[in-house]
Amino acid sequence: MFDWHLASGYRFAGIVSKLRKEPDRRDLAVIVSDAPAAAAGVYTQNRVCAAPVQLSRGRTPGVVRAIVICSGNANACTGERGLRDAERMAELVAIELNCPPEQVLVASTGVIGRPLPMPILEEGIPLAVRAAKSGPEALCDAAHAILTTDTRIKVCTRKVGTATVTGFAKGAAMIGPNMATMLGFIMTDAPLAPALAQAILKKATDDTFNCISVEGHTSTNDTVFLLANGTQPALGESDAKPFFEAVHGVCAELAREIARDAEGARHLVTIDVEGCRTDAEARTIAKAIAESALVKTAIAGGDPNWGRVVSAAGYSGVAFEERELSLWMGETKLYESGAPLGFDAAAASKYLNDNREVTFRLVLTHGPGRCRFLTCDLTEEYVRLNADYTT
Amino acid sequence: MFDWHLASGYRFAGIVSKLRKEPDRRDLAVIVSDAPAAAAGVYTQNRVCAAPVQLSRGRTPGVVRAIVICSGNANACTGERGLRDAERMAELVAIELNCPPEQVLVASTGVIGRPLPMPILEEGIPLAVRAAKSGPEALCDAAHAILTTDTRIKVCTRKVGTATVTGFAKGAAMIGPNMATMLGFIMTDAPLAPALAQAILKKATDDTFNCISVEGHTSTNDTVFLLANGTQPALGESDAKPFFEAVHGVCAELAREIARDAEGARHLVTIDVEGCRTDAEARTIAKAIAESALVKTAIAGGDPNWGRVVSAAGYSGVAFEERELSLWMGETKLYESGAPLGFDAAAASKYLNDNREVTFRLVLTHGPGRCRFLTCDLTEEYVRLNADYTT
Repeated sequence: MFDWHLASGYRFAGIVSKLRKEPDRRDLAVIVSDAPAAAAGVYTQNRVCAAPVQLSRGRTPGVVRAIVICSGNANACTGERGLRDAERMAELVAIELNCPPEQVLVASTGVIGRPLPMPILEEGIPLAVRAAKSGPEALCDAAHAILTTDTRIKVCTRKVGTATVTGFAKGAAMIGPNMATMLGFIMTDAPLAPALAQAILKKATDDTFNCISVEGHTSTNDTVFLLANGTQPALGESDAKPFFEAVHGVCAELAREIARDAEGARHLVTIDVEGCRTDAEARTIAKAIAESALVKTAIAGGDPNWGRVVSAAGYSGVAFEERELSLWMGETKLYESGAPLGFDAAAASKYLNDNREVTFRLVLTHGPGRCRFLTCDLTEEYVRLNADYTT
Repeated sequence: MFDWHLASGYRFAGIVSKLRKEPDRRDLAVIVSDAPAAAAGVYTQNRVCAAPVQLSRGRTPGVVRAIVICSGNANACTGERGLRDAERMAELVAIELNCPPEQVLVASTGVIGRPLPMPILEEGIPLAVRAAKSGPEALCDAAHAILTTDTRIKVCTRKVGTATVTGFAKGAAMIGPNMATMLGFIMTDAPLAPALAQAILKKATDDTFNCISVEGHTSTNDTVFLLANGTQPALGESDAKPFFEAVHGVCAELAREIARDAEGARHLVTIDVEGCRTDAEARTIAKAIAESALVKTAIAGGDPNWGRVVSAAGYSGVAFEERELSLWMGETKLYESGAPLGFDAAAASKYLNDNREVTFRLVLTHGPGRCRFLTCDLTEEYVRLNADYTT
């Protein structure tokens, strides 16, 4: 586990600050860059967004020294006080690092509508910054400290030429306490201008973190950051594409891990939509299928219910005729040019029951537009997890 | 139960045709108007729509003598053959009534992707037409014959001046076999021109049948018809408004019964959104809340989780600022001008646990736009019902 090769020039900590009630549960993380790093951010589209999102949005693209993250409290729907608290979190880091507070980004995840317990953070943040170390063990601590209902940490690292791209993330649906969130932190030791970092991150998240769904409830706190501290030499012209692919690959792997770890899920479901006029239309269709409770319960039940998939495409808002649709589940063609095919229902059901990862592929006849969307099934366990939490 | 006063000049039947496997389960219904009736229809917005929808859409607004409805098979995704079968269903009725086949409407609900067993319908439809009678008992048979996973029939009738408006409906979410549907049949004995009937039906469905959601999965077969046979005298000018209100009232009552009967639901949930720029914006917000799995599981769990409600509004796509939002649950204000209020969590939880019908009211500060949307909670039972059905 600890033979990861990490992006250089970063230190990490994940400490037990007692923001959470559970003793010994890490709940406060920092990422410190030894050198000022170009910083990019992509954020939730929700109109109701948390104070740390509002704060960080104003600081990216830009140059930063650190990120501070707390879990257990989202600092969302907390008004003016929430903004002041998020600013203070950044300031506490800046004091330790002797840098301007504007060079610190903030993220939070957890219960919403409750003010942050600032005395705990006043004490914990300086300790966390001082505890920050390089190396996989420290990264692991940070990756643990950002979790909410996740069952495991999500970490991925890739080397490209002299540079390395390292990321970690959390997310397991929006469940209790009140609301979880998707948070992702991508670090590279290549040098990038802030605007380029922003463009790369935006492009990399479009078909990764923005193409996963557990139940379609966009959180108030979703955030992905990319830091580039330039502690390794600049990459050559010919490395631009492999470098982007490394960032994209890290985002894709983390996104996939989030969908796999969705609460109560027994299946990781890939929805491939192809043959659309545009990628955007393909995404609209794939998202409608991925978010259909009927599709997701059918998969949980091992039912190869192609009718639910086709009809979810039908209400997505994209214009098509039935005869322009064909559908595969795994290698089995269920529906061709608008007509159902005879297929071995027992074998199809076995495919769903025997595989933890399943694929539906819907092909239209309009053009080259395509999208891959990841989701999970909807189980009784999901409902139990989400219903039984009490505010 | 049988002292309903019904719209005059209509006969009904609901027979056991053996379309369904269960012995003695009624599965084939007809509605016959003694006189040619103005006919209006509103249909699913799904691009993938069933053969009976395609057929009936071409016949409304228009003049008809009858409607034939089968349950157990939706005749959807059945290609050219499905269209021919739907046409044949109409023709079988027309032969019995000695009217043009274009004067017969068709609706179906049930499993999709399977051809109709036409020998059963060839035999059953003539029997059903001949069995059609006036009166509540026959209406009841028809109301039973259209059900799928519903636990009870939904019937409503209202008198207005010399006219009567009578309706029945089915719908209990889109579940097995494969896909259920919302079907509604509204009959009046007032005379109406077809275009007026269409306008009235469209307006009456907008904030009734189009403002309910179980899981947001638009069916391939959703249909509401309005027939007006003029067997009673024309209403005066002053009766226009009460007449519309009667049609609207019948639609509203049936829509409410559908939401109440949603599979596995323990709560009927009313989402009132007020203070928006337009009714359409209010509807967009209300629909996002009503279809949020997180909101619905919280209600199932008795959790007054206002954060989920507010954040669902936030991702609805309507522009607002947090400080423009206030939220009530029942009589309790949970959130005011963007800030959470201290409230008695135990009492709030008790409200959810003790009441089968609960209300959330979200108020913005933009204008007079409003919408009332009905939904239900999301329970483990819903997942069980929808997962355990096997194609």
